[in-house]
Amino acid sequence: MQPPLSADSTLPVPPRAFDPEAVHRLLNPYSVAVIGASDDSEKFGGRAIEYLVKFGFPGIIVPVNPRVASVRGIRAYPSVSQCPHAIDVALIAAPVNHVLPALNECSQAGVRACVVITAQFAEIGEEGERRQDEIVRVAHRHGMRLLGPNCLGYVNMHARTAATATLALSSMTRLRAGGIGLVSQSGALMGSLIAVGDEAGVRFSSCVSVGNQCDLETADFVHYLAQDPTTRVICLYVEGLAAPDRFLEAVDRARAHGKRVLMVKAGRTQSGAVAVKSHTASLAGSYPALQAVCEAHGVLLLDDIFDMLLVAECLNRHGRLRGDGIAMFSSSGGAGASLVDALADRDIRVATLHAQTTHALASTLPQTHRQLPIDFGVARVNTRGETADDTIPRVLATVMSDSDVAAGVVVLTTGTMMESMARGCVEVGNACAKPLLWVNTSGRAGASAQAIIEQGGQLTCRSPQEAVRTIACLVTDFRRAAIAEPVAQETLELDEALAELSPGVLNEGETKRLLAAAGVPVTRESLARNEHDAARIAGKIGFPVVLKVQAPGVSHKSDVGGVALDLGSEGGVRTAYRRIVQELVRRTGTQPDGCLVQEMVAAEAEIIVGTKWDAQFGAMILVGSGGILVELLGDVRLAPAPVAAHTALAMLRSLKLAALLTGYRGKAGIDLDAVAAVVARISQLAAHMGPRLLELDANPLIVTRDRVVVADARAVLGR
Amino acid sequence: MQPPLSADSTLPVPPRAFDPEAVHRLLNPYSVAVIGASDDSEKFGGRAIEYLVKFGFPGIIVPVNPRVASVRGIRAYPSVSQCPHAIDVALIAAPVNHVLPALNECSQAGVRACVVITAQFAEIGEEGERRQDEIVRVAHRHGMRLLGPNCLGYVNMHARTAATATLALSSMTRLRAGGIGLVSQSGALMGSLIAVGDEAGVRFSSCVSVGNQCDLETADFVHYLAQDPTTRVICLYVEGLAAPDRFLEAVDRARAHGKRVLMVKAGRTQSGAVAVKSHTASLAGSYPALQAVCEAHGVLLLDDIFDMLLVAECLNRHGRLRGDGIAMFSSSGGAGASLVDALADRDIRVATLHAQTTHALASTLPQTHRQLPIDFGVARVNTRGETADDTIPRVLATVMSDSDVAAGVVVLTTGTMMESMARGCVEVGNACAKPLLWVNTSGRAGASAQAIIEQGGQLTCRSPQEAVRTIACLVTDFRRAAIAEPVAQETLELDEALAELSPGVLNEGETKRLLAAAGVPVTRESLARNEHDAARIAGKIGFPVVLKVQAPGVSHKSDVGGVALDLGSEGGVRTAYRRIVQELVRRTGTQPDGCLVQEMVAAEAEIIVGTKWDAQFGAMILVGSGGILVELLGDVRLAPAPVAAHTALAMLRSLKLAALLTGYRGKAGIDLDAVAAVVARISQLAAHMGPRLLELDANPLIVTRDRVVVADARAVLGR
Repeated sequence: MQPPLSADSTLPVPPRAFDPEAVHRLLNPYSVAVIGASDDSEKFGGRAIEYLVKFGFPGIIVPVNPRVASVRGIRAYPSVSQCPHAIDVALIAAPVNHVLPALNECSQAGVRACVVITAQFAEIGEEGERRQDEIVRVAHRHGMRLLGPNCLGYVNMHARTAATATLALSSMTRLRAGGIGLVSQSGALMGSLIAVGDEAGVRFSSCVSVGNQCDLETADFVHYLAQDPTTRVICLYVEGLAAPDRFLEAVDRARAHGKRVLMVKAGRTQSGAVAVKSHTASLAGSYPALQAVCEAHGVLLLDDIFDMLLVAECLNRHGRLRGDGIAMFSSSGGAGASLVDALADRDIRVATLHAQTTHALASTLPQTHRQLPIDFGVARVNTRGETADDTIPRVLATVMSDSDVAAGVVVLTTGTMMESMARGCVEVGNACAKPLLWVNTSGRAGASAQAIIEQGGQLTCRSPQEAVRTIACLVTDFRRAAIAEPVAQETLELDEALAELSPGVLNEGETKRLLAAAGVPVTRESLARNEHDAARIAGKIGFPVVLKVQAPGVSHKSDVGGVALDLGSEGGVRTAYRRIVQELVRRTGTQPDGCLVQEMVAAEAEIIVGTKWDAQFGAMILVGSGGILVELLGDVRLAPAPVAAHTALAMLRSLKLAALLTGYRGKAGIDLDAVAAVVARISQLAAHMGPRLLELDANPLIVTRDRVVVADARAVLGR
Repeated sequence: MQPPLSADSTLPVPPRAFDPEAVHRLLNPYSVAVIGASDDSEKFGGRAIEYLVKFGFPGIIVPVNPRVASVRGIRAYPSVSQCPHAIDVALIAAPVNHVLPALNECSQAGVRACVVITAQFAEIGEEGERRQDEIVRVAHRHGMRLLGPNCLGYVNMHARTAATATLALSSMTRLRAGGIGLVSQSGALMGSLIAVGDEAGVRFSSCVSVGNQCDLETADFVHYLAQDPTTRVICLYVEGLAAPDRFLEAVDRARAHGKRVLMVKAGRTQSGAVAVKSHTASLAGSYPALQAVCEAHGVLLLDDIFDMLLVAECLNRHGRLRGDGIAMFSSSGGAGASLVDALADRDIRVATLHAQTTHALASTLPQTHRQLPIDFGVARVNTRGETADDTIPRVLATVMSDSDVAAGVVVLTTGTMMESMARGCVEVGNACAKPLLWVNTSGRAGASAQAIIEQGGQLTCRSPQEAVRTIACLVTDFRRAAIAEPVAQETLELDEALAELSPGVLNEGETKRLLAAAGVPVTRESLARNEHDAARIAGKIGFPVVLKVQAPGVSHKSDVGGVALDLGSEGGVRTAYRRIVQELVRRTGTQPDGCLVQEMVAAEAEIIVGTKWDAQFGAMILVGSGGILVELLGDVRLAPAPVAAHTALAMLRSLKLAALLTGYRGKAGIDLDAVAAVVARISQLAAHMGPRLLELDANPLIVTRDRVVVADARAVLGR
């Protein structure tokens, strides 16, 4: 299967059983020790203490520093072991050579978990890996859990616990708590997400930076947050997945608890993967396979971390959209029209207001302006003693309650009613069961309006484009097909077919016998060893026939003149056989095994079906437009195997060129159900064989008026 | 031609000669009167005076208000006529019923130009249109120029002249002047662009809000800014073009003066066009035609107004990119990798650093991190007495000077070296001849770094996505083919061919005779009136042939069973003729004129070529992938006609499916030069006929091994 899958690997983390109790205690500690605590906020240990105090950590703070008696007025201890309290969490930001001794001491003192902020571990290569192995061994020996190393700790907003030194909290005076659980492989990006999110109106439950994931990893936190009552939506920034199986198990648990999981994967492009690799030594894995798996498990995969936050907060506050019509509001006709254009670029439609909505707008808006985008600039104010503070919330509420409106966007341009718009947006946005995004395009001229929005906790985007991307993600999520239920894997009787095959590349005949054994229809054909043989077989199959050379090492048969089509007579078959052999000898100097004599099938349509064993996610099945368009347009769909026939059907229907299959301009459609059934069977073959079938291409799968049949195929067997 | 062109219209503005002297005086007045001036900044007339004073207008300020003796300590006059000064510009924001009297008085007092901010003119329908006509008549009678109505005035940053009441200036203490000239049809968006631009580091020369454009319109200001020495790049926000010819003349003038013109057109999508129409009564026009014309005239068309500003400022400071390799800098590996992903999504590559660059980074970055994206987080600081303030600028300067780096992006995540990064970005960004964009993703935690950037005048984006879009526009601009020189229009001898044709739909035979007369190769064919005739003609043309019914009102011949392909003998032709006639009679009850007997041409490739008369921009030529893919993929290119053969060739090569034409997977390419020559000829026909040829479809244009020939065609003639 040529298209987008690539070789892959996983991170070397020992899979451990999930232990939600340990994660709970880590994120909700009764006591936190800070190794290297100080009064100096420029230092890690100083900032950590500052945050614990500033945000009102309700438990016991234990500064550890042999050189001082107290930090910020709190009694300090020379070492963890000399402290009388039981320590739930110790925060270590010591120089790299001091980490192991500190961990040793912590484990001996019965500390339950350590957060290792110090870097220079596995991310810097072999020396660091050895160092990391050592700290893992110490921790495991004593049953102590580790977060990090090379992380920035965590913040539990609800528990007022900031076990971190991220500068993102430096400008905040309090932790505003909400329903978004964040797990980030990058500490710096966790900081950015907290800082940018807080200003945008995103409210977190807990944020965790997992760093090198030497012990606790992303999946452990997803598994925990799945049942954490303060978390409703889980956001993940991932560079490489430590253990795909654990990840999917955790993700399924979140789904079972009715929680959405959103994820951004760095290194999703080829050049991004190179950058990630040099950064954390995480191997990126195959992004198309990840996409397919996420779709199958209900994980919403996004391209941008800030989009992820805004989408998550919308889902947190209002759940999935209940439609795809959007309402736009501005005090400028130009801003409204520009927003409509930007949404239309992404196939998102303007909601159509119902007659009663339009009617209700009559008291405020002139006849010509009672439709979307709403232009507050023409609203009647200062009549009947009303001001913009009266009319704007009324218009917003009226339009947002229209059943065709699924979400709204308010764009602030400079003007006299900026603060009224902000107040209206807060009032209606908080009362309304649908997302209402705010965008300030007035810069500092809109500062006081913006302050009203932030104080009101309204969700705010930094630009119209950001609002458009957020809406686009929500609409895509709404339009997405229901998540397919997993399909039972069938037991196939392949022993006989497999007995004759050895690892390596299978030729067309071998691949088709394997397919046939799995119940996949293939062209009638037989291998001829000489021209007489070929003529006889052709007579039995019925004319016209096709001849295809079969020779060791020849996989692109037409490149060596090894294919003859549409042969209508025995004489024609003989001549073609001779020519093919001559041509092969001339070009390669070798004799062929023979020629495959094959029925000639007239195609109504051609499709490509493939399988691939993905190192992270196992057997995958691919369908695509046939012929050369598959490569020119990359028009393929991927799913984890096996798939049910109805899932295969949905994949086929979602191809860009699906119209070529479903009927177009008077041309009748093909029997897609029959195609889907064949795709499902091939997916069962892939699932059954597991890593023994590295890849298989059925290309083309030919659809005629009354049959679906594999016309050419090749495969690669593993051991 | 079915694809994307649509019917169109222009705004009813009387074309006037360009008068740059009048525009110059409007934008550089010696004296400004404010009708309805007051001390109350909540009022238009109060804010206008406030701005003139605050920003240090160097000329004479004339407050006009019959009820006060002075405004802000400046002597006020009861009316313009009672003021002793000659008035260059009067600003009118009076209630709508007072506008006409005020204009009358101004014109009699010899005021050179009036800026009419008051709304409720043409944008509200017939009543407003009449009102607008009246003020235009008054102004024209006295040679007074008008800006507006329904506008927000203008700001000339270099002349410290803010003849506006936009709230965008309320939070500014001074006008920072630069090289971007802005003309906006929306006053509110002019405000947004000034406010957001100023914070982003964009520096304007003049910003003009043209409103309803009853007199001076967008083209007048483009024409003026083209030779304004303070302006280097011109940005336009357009909802509808008043007079396309004047616009193109002005744009060409800017190009002749070496200035770039950037433009965002609201209503570029179907739903956006509806929004624009209800907003300003501007008809949107055909966006594909506008795109084609802009490409031909070197106008850079963008999708988003804020992107436009950032791109403009890059072009203003550094000119066009000199390559397409991008450098990324961050103190977080994750942020760098994410940026690489986002750029790769838009086919933008990471620059490849040369060996000497990598070598020069050795003192600062570890072996593993001497490539892009640069991660300052691993830079060696505090060794050899160096700090981040030393190392960051050095790394930035080293990388930015690499010849494969065309532009750079610095992403700020939370961390200890935020301010050093900002200082480094200002230092290197100002010294470097390439764009270096700054993105703060640290929110308020990065406020002091952000302040350094803004103070240093560095260009700053609100999100990584905004930086990516800006870079993408710059790279697209770099990769764009050179602007084609205009082609001479040929004189064609068509009188004879046209004599027999009347307005309305032309059938295949008629269209092909027109094409043939213009020198376009068409299939050999002749109309047969009966089956014997058909057999005879077929014998003359040579077998196989095609029969196509010709009957009044039948344009989709195959829908009525009116096409028979691949007829190999006279008998076959007779039988087919009878069947076609029977079928037509059965289905429509009418007799045909006859059947076209046509040579059968074996296609190596099929292309669609079309022409369309666009109401705004005249004759257009279109090429597209042939067959059903043109509709499924919208794979077409458009240009104003006529085009030279080499331009037609470039259009063909830029089709998404160009690979199908230029050769693919061993299949030889077709003779694209021959195709381009035919496209060029058809474009000459379109240009020659002007509005007499409303549209023409040559579909398909068939390419064989040795010929290019129109196999089917239809056209619509105008009067």
